Formats: sequence, structure tokens, C-alpha cells
Amino acid sequence: MTRRLVVIGGDAAGGSAASQARKRCPDLDVVMFERGRATSYSACGIPYWISGAVTDEASLIARTPEQHRAAGIDVRMRTEVTGIDLDARRVTWRDLDGGATGTEPFDDLVYATGSVPMRPPVPGIDADGVYGVQVLDDGAALRTELNRGEVRRVVVVGGGYIGLEIAEACRVRDLAVTVVDLSATPIGTFDPDVGTFIADAVRGLGIDLVLSDGVVALDVGPDGRVCAVRTASGRELPADLVVLGLGVRPNVRLAQEAGIPLGTSGGIAVDARMRTGVEGVWAAGDCAESRHLLSGQRVVVALGTHANKQGRVAGINIGGGYATFPGVIGTAITKVCDLEVARTGLSSQEAEAAGFSFVTASVDSTTKAGYFPGAQPIRLKMIAERRSGRLLGAQVVGRQEAAKRIDALAVCIWNGMTVDRILSLDLSYAPPFSPVWDPVLIAARKAFEAVEADVRRL
Amino acid sequence: MTRRLVVIGGDAAGGSAASQARKRCPDLDVVMFERGRATSYSACGIPYWISGAVTDEASLIARTPEQHRAAGIDVRMRTEVTGIDLDARRVTWRDLDGGATGTEPFDDLVYATGSVPMRPPVPGIDADGVYGVQVLDDGAALRTELNRGEVRRVVVVGGGYIGLEIAEACRVRDLAVTVVDLSATPIGTFDPDVGTFIADAVRGLGIDLVLSDGVVALDVGPDGRVCAVRTASGRELPADLVVLGLGVRPNVRLAQEAGIPLGTSGGIAVDARMRTGVEGVWAAGDCAESRHLLSGQRVVVALGTHANKQGRVAGINIGGGYATFPGVIGTAITKVCDLEVARTGLSSQEAEAAGFSFVTASVDSTTKAGYFPGAQPIRLKMIAERRSGRLLGAQVVGRQEAAKRIDALAVCIWNGMTVDRILSLDLSYAPPFSPVWDPVLIAARKAFEAVEADVRRL
Repeated sequence: MTRRLVVIGGDAAGGSAASQARKRCPDLDVVMFERGRATSYSACGIPYWISGAVTDEASLIARTPEQHRAAGIDVRMRTEVTGIDLDARRVTWRDLDGGATGTEPFDDLVYATGSVPMRPPVPGIDADGVYGVQVLDDGAALRTELNRGEVRRVVVVGGGYIGLEIAEACRVRDLAVTVVDLSATPIGTFDPDVGTFIADAVRGLGIDLVLSDGVVALDVGPDGRVCAVRTASGRELPADLVVLGLGVRPNVRLAQEAGIPLGTSGGIAVDARMRTGVEGVWAAGDCAESRHLLSGQRVVVALGTHANKQGRVAGINIGGGYATFPGVIGTAITKVCDLEVARTGLSSQEAEAAGFSFVTASVDSTTKAGYFPGAQPIRLKMIAERRSGRLLGAQVVGRQEAAKRIDALAVCIWNGMTVDRILSLDLSYAPPFSPVWDPVLIAARKAFEAVEADVRRL
Repeated sequence: MTRRLVVIGGDAAGGSAASQARKRCPDLDVVMFERGRATSYSACGIPYWISGAVTDEASLIARTPEQHRAAGIDVRMRTEVTGIDLDARRVTWRDLDGGATGTEPFDDLVYATGSVPMRPPVPGIDADGVYGVQVLDDGAALRTELNRGEVRRVVVVGGGYIGLEIAEACRVRDLAVTVVDLSATPIGTFDPDVGTFIADAVRGLGIDLVLSDGVVALDVGPDGRVCAVRTASGRELPADLVVLGLGVRPNVRLAQEAGIPLGTSGGIAVDARMRTGVEGVWAAGDCAESRHLLSGQRVVVALGTHANKQGRVAGINIGGGYATFPGVIGTAITKVCDLEVARTGLSSQEAEAAGFSFVTASVDSTTKAGYFPGAQPIRLKMIAERRSGRLLGAQVVGRQEAAKRIDALAVCIWNGMTVDRILSLDLSYAPPFSPVWDPVLIAARKAFEAVEADVRRL
């Protein structure tokens, strides 16, 4: 009998796993269930679709159901998997439109259900006018509502990446926008001294920032629709629409019910080949946990780039190959108006939480030679382990052509480089691209001096 | 008696060495000889000063003689060192303006004389109207001549980095420009498939490219001034002015005369601490050779970033500290109009010359998510060692925000990463900065597949 792979979830991780497995093993039966209207789309692109920068929903879709089918994958759209029976090796499903139900046997199973937005357990959270922006259908619903033209005031709950991206998108649409966040600076995973640059850029867009404050209730009008957000400090923020940008948690309900083991992070526990604790059951994407290569801890990082890699790894392994996903180091990047920010490794707070003892160094430099037209300020921060000098984290903030420089530092961290070795690196130099001492090298010098001074004090 | 350091050459390497040594060791007497009019300037900025993008000569100067003096360095401007007596531990010098001569004793000596432009040994090469662009004074002379407004047709001999940068600068000034180069594509240290992009960009600027051809003679008019360039293929290119952009060779005459040993590359032989074969004599910058960390060969790479690092390392060691310059991997970057190109490691030709057996992979991707406004094409080429899969070289070509991505690959090569490990890297991703599979990861995937396919064929 033909071996059968069932994939639950048809976005980045599921789609990649299905494609790779089928490509490696053309005899494999592959059935992929997706409860939404789209497969393999860019969730990260949703804010730009809402802002209008991206005009066409279809352009967010990397691979349509038809394309998957052409590759030999039996895609079942708008079909939700409602249960997994690990003993009988089958899933039960329900057609969300027609209501039909059924079962599908599997030899291998890929669990790629993604994540669900965090919903603060406060009164009013289920009112009309409260939106997540997790899946493409969420984005479509939000966009439709905004296009109706009746919304004037938006409150975004959460000032992380997605929160700020949605806030900016709404601001571009000329709405009054307020962002509420518990941290003292937006995107609390950046160090506060970098975060202040972000705060300034957000305010520069005309967005109100309510920081160090949390949401305690949503007021609901007589029509059942949200009308205001109340915060712990006593603020009452009028709102025609609320967007939840508090981040996400892994969507593990089905797995839990079936008995697929979770890890300490709350995501599905997997090894480097994306195998769960159950033979023939794999997990990938936002629902699965990863090893943080610096802290050694298990973490869940919901990011399309990881989902794609993990899906690919699962698919290769299912198809009889060998591939691994070694882990993550917390690299992230975003843009607020023209301010670019990026980070990799651990922030100061994360390094402390992980038990590291460290020094930091911040430098201000320019993106091109100082004398070159268009040179822009760039700030780099490095976090280096005491005594060893190993780079533990880095953050970049600047305008144009600043943030993507984080990748060089991500590779440094990935290889366990110490700051003294980093300052010898043969990085590219020409006046239109950097000062003769590249900002990365200047920061490494300063971090090295901090490590050295610290060692001398011992 | 106070220890005395004499530094020959006051640009990047010499200036850095002097500063660091004095900083570490405030009792040290430091005398720095510079035969030009400026210290610590950006030679790499000269083309942009000639084009007018940089308007102020002073902005090219990182540290003036006065600033060096304020730091306690006895700077002797317009003073040429004419001889080194290693037995008597002293140098002889000549004031280029006043004509005075003298000697200066030293305990330590830093040889940082830079490089001299290659001059093809052809008839007419010493005629008026033939310019190098090696030092700031060359740039000033060229600029003065162009400002006079009598030059219409410029021929640039050599289509490497500096040749193209000068050619573009002259084109910006609305001159008719022809570039002659022996290679089949400009900047012959790029692989030809990348070089064709460069050729197209150069031609797009309205510059004539004469490739696979060499200069055999310069015609000189009755006024003693160059009037045409003759090539091996029989072309006669009219020229009011000729710029030599053939690259440089280390300026080692004084060292040779004094008996300071040269290396196989023709540059001064140094160890990782920048010590020459003579006790207390150090060398740094364009005149000194470096170890190429991939080929293991000794090379001379004339680049401001190396000169600064090497000078710093020499200065720290002279000042009683410990520092090393481990070597280079051939990273370089430039811009032709809006086309950005960069390379690191070995090109195909260099890899072959160094005895490597390798596969290559080229990919076309975009600088942002494909659907994101402003996404630009980017091409990446990787050269990976057969069997091991170790990355040996990489090249990037694209518009806006393309080339600086080479740094991540430089760090990969520096750490000896194999392409299969590179494709797991946690690089930054968000739609305004890259597709969900970063071009670096896509190229690593393709290179990995090439390595794998090659292994299977064994």
C-alpha cells in the first residue's frame, strides 16, 4: 500500500514539508488540510497589505492550492482537522463550508497548525471590532472593515513587531492610532536605549504611545461593539476598532488532546529533525519549539523564516533524507517609518535571565563614510560575555541601509566569535557603504575594550 | 633616555600606528614623516571628490597634522625619508620644500610607505597629462586640471575598482570617457557572469569599454602632452588626459635598500603582529603583505580598512600590548552608478589557481519580499569546495541595499562554514528587508544541492 503523509496546516511550515516530502518521494500520498482560504502565504506581509503598500492579496501568496495540487499534493481547503487518533493513525476533519466530516489515515503526520494571537483575559475582549492579525483571513477581515470607512480611532494592544507594523499601517490610512504596551519602550525585546529611538520614530508618525501600561478592560457599546480601551493606570482610550498585537502562542490544542508531548516552552517538543515524541509524527513552524543556541533554552519564535526552514527539514526527513534545524539565536528586524531596527542573540535583559555575566558597548557611526553624501547615523550595541568576550547579542538602529547589517553579527554569534576576533574581520569597505572602520568593527573594538577593562579589574 | 618611534608615512597605517603606540605608551617619543600635504586621509574618497559628490578636500582627512600633534606626535610634513640605516638605527630625511636634510634616530620603526601606481612600461607613459590617483596630492592635481575645463576626452587605463570609480567621476563631469582593460569584463577579480552586469552598468553611464585589450603606447603631442592611447588590438583612442587605474604595487624601495626582507608577494614580509624580519622594525598598510586565509598565500591588498587595522595592531604591539592581524579573505565592494557589487573569498579563477576543486551556484532573488514595493533584483553567486562543501567565495550584484550583504558571507568564510550550515543560519527577515528565504539562504541551498549532487556522482 502507498505510504500516506497527512499535513495539518497549509501555510509556510506545512506547505514546505508537503512539497519537500513529495519532491523527494514521488510515490508518497500527501494530503494537506488547511482551514483558511489560502496556502503558503506571507503572514508577515499582512500589515503592508493593510497599509496599501501591497495592493494585491494574491501577491502575498507564494503557492496557491492549485500550484500545490499540480505538484501532486491533495490539498483540502477550508477543512479543519478536529482530532488526531495516534493509535488508529488517522485524523478526523470537518469541511467548514459544507459541514461534511470524515477521517483520513496517515503513516506520517506533520503538525503545522501555527499560532493563535494572545488574547488578554479582560472583559470585552470578545466584542465586535476586536481583531487579530494572525492569518490572512484576519487581515482580510480587518482590511474590509477599514475600507468601509467608518473607523476613525484605532487602539493597538501591544507594541511589539506586529503591533507597530499594524499601527503604522493604520496611520498611513490616516486613522488616529494609539499603541498600548507594558514595556517602557516599544518592542520590549530591544534594550531600552535602543527602544527610545523606536519610541521617537513611532511618535514621529503621529502615533500615540501609552507605555508601561496594560489593558484591563474593553468598553463595549450598546451595539455590542468595542468603544474604548481601559488601562491599568486609569486611562480610557476611545476606540472604534482594537487590534491585538500582543504576540502569539503556539496552537497546540489538537496535539495536547491527542497526546503529542509539549516542551517547556509550551510549543510542541521536537528534535533537530523536527520529530515529535511520537513515531512518525512531526511538527514545524510557529507551533513547534526551537532550541535557543545561546541560552540553551527551548523557545517558540513565530517567524516565517523559521517555519519555512523547519517545514523543509521535516519534509526532507519524511522523504527519506537527512536534515536538521539546529535552532535559533533570536534574530529579528523591522522598520518604523524610515527607522530600521534589528537585533540578534540576547538582549541585556535576556542575557541576564539566562544567567550570563556581560558587558555592553554602544557606538554611533554612519552608514557610509562620514564625508559621503547621504551618510546616515547608525547606532550599534553589543553585549559580550565577561572574561570570554564572546558576543552574546547585538542591536542596530538607524535609517536607510542600517538594519540588515545585523546579519553579519548573527553569523558571528552563530559561530561563537569573541569580540576581539570580530574586530579583525575582513568586512567590505568602500566610502558609499561604510566608514573605513565599519560600524561593526568599531562596536567590536569598544566591546573588546570593555571586556579587557573588566578583566583588568579582576 | 626616552624610547623613540619613527614612522615613515602618515596616512592610514602610519597614523594609526603612531596614535596607538603613543596612546598606550605616553612616554614614547613619536616622530612621523609624511612627504605629502595631508595625514590620515581617505584615498578611497578621491574619486568622489573628483566627481564633486564630496565637495571639500578637508572632509577626506580623518586626522590633520595638527590633531596628531595635539596627541603628542611630532609630525614632519612634506618631509621624505630618503634612507634607513638599520645598523645605526636612524633614518635620513629631506624637506621637500626647503631642501633641508637630516637624520632621526629610532628604537622602533614603522614602515608605512603605502603603494605606488603601476605604470605600464610603454612609450609616452611619462608625458604630461598622465595621472595616477594614488595619494591625495594626485587627486588634487587631477582635480585642478579637470577644473581648468580644457579636458574633453579621458582614457582610463585599467578597469578595476579605482579605474571604474575614476571613470564614473569623469563621466559625472560630462567628459567623454573610455576605459581600457585586459580582462573580458571589468573588475577582472569578479567571475565573468557577474562582470557582465558591471560591464552593462558602465556602458549604461555612457562610458566606452575597450575590453580584452591592453595599452601598448601613448601618443604625445608636440607640446609634450599625451594625445592618444594605442592598444594591442590596433585601436587609437584620442585622449586629452589619461588616468592610470591599473592598481598599485607596494612601495618597498627604501626597505629593499635598507635590507628589510620582502615576502613572496613583493610586499614587506610581516608576522601577524606586523613585525618585519628586523627586530624593532614594523610594517603596515599597502606596503606590507597579508596572509590570505583561504589560499594560504601571501598577498598584498591595498585597502584602507586593512591599513587601519594593521597600523593599529603595530601600534598596540609597539606600545607594549599584544594584538594580531590574522589576514584577509579578499572582501571588496564598489558601486557603478546605482549598481552595487561585492565579493569575498576567492573568485572561481582564484580558487582554481589556489588548487581548490569546487562547484558554483548562482541565484536570482530580490532585496525585499518580491511583493514589497521597491524590491530590486539581486544575484548571488557562491563557490563551494567539492566534497567538504566549505564556502570558498561569494559574489553579490544588485541595486540598492544589495552589496553590503556580502559581510554576512565574509563572516561565514572567516569561520570556515560549509554551505549546509549556512542554510540554517538565523538571518534577519521581514518583508522590507528580504524574501522569507533570504538570498543568502537560497544561494546556500543551491550550492548545497550542487555539492550533494557532486558527491553522489563520486
